[in-house]
Amino acid sequence: MLAHGARDAAWAAPFERVAAAVRAARPGLAVALAYLEFMAPDLPSAGAALAQAGCRHVTVLPLFLGVGGHVRKDLPVLLERLRAQHPGVRWTLAPTIGEDARLVAAIAAIALDAADAEYDVRL
Amino acid sequence: MLAHGARDAAWAAPFERVAAAVRAARPGLAVALAYLEFMAPDLPSAGAALAQAGCRHVTVLPLFLGVGGHVRKDLPVLLERLRAQHPGVRWTLAPTIGEDARLVAAIAAIALDAADAEYDVRL
Repeated sequence: MLAHGARDAAWAAPFERVAAAVRAARPGLAVALAYLEFMAPDLPSAGAALAQAGCRHVTVLPLFLGVGGHVRKDLPVLLERLRAQHPGVRWTLAPTIGEDARLVAAIAAIALDAADAEYDVRL
Repeated sequence: MLAHGARDAAWAAPFERVAAAVRAARPGLAVALAYLEFMAPDLPSAGAALAQAGCRHVTVLPLFLGVGGHVRKDLPVLLERLRAQHPGVRWTLAPTIGEDARLVAAIAAIALDAADAEYDVRL
């Protein structure tokens, strides 16, 4: 699972919750988080660790809402590098999560709740 | 609903789907999309349009997965500006969508599917 990354360590919390939920649901599945910027590991490192752990098929899931330059330009380069460095592993790419109707529906449900709620977050 | 924005117009598609779903579910609710960078409208413009349309309470929902500098630093400045420019409107801030357990659950479900599927997206 590849996320953008940020300078603030707390930024990664939702992604760590996702990884924990996936691991809990599928204990036999090797799950790794990787980041494009600012945070470690990057995709080459996370991929190398999975290959080293014996994975023979790794699906890269972009944890991005929109498909922009990071997904369309940065990710193909990283995938080609993984394929070149670990030819014994099959590297495939899943659709970006923002393309999935379940994500759109979840965000819409959150938005409808937010319109009704008396939230007033102080940052 | 405030999203990051990107250079590529197609990036906004998931957010536009969310807005369409919210409008379909609640036709009486004024719904606006705004962007921090690259895309229009920005939050001051979208907020001004809602105020002009007669909205008296606007809830700003950050469409970000992680809470980083954009949410913690940029957004409070924009909210203060909206409050100063439109004192007749109550401006409140909802939690960032990535903080919501429904979003985490949706992403985890997508990730579990991706692990099973034979996706191979070509970018």
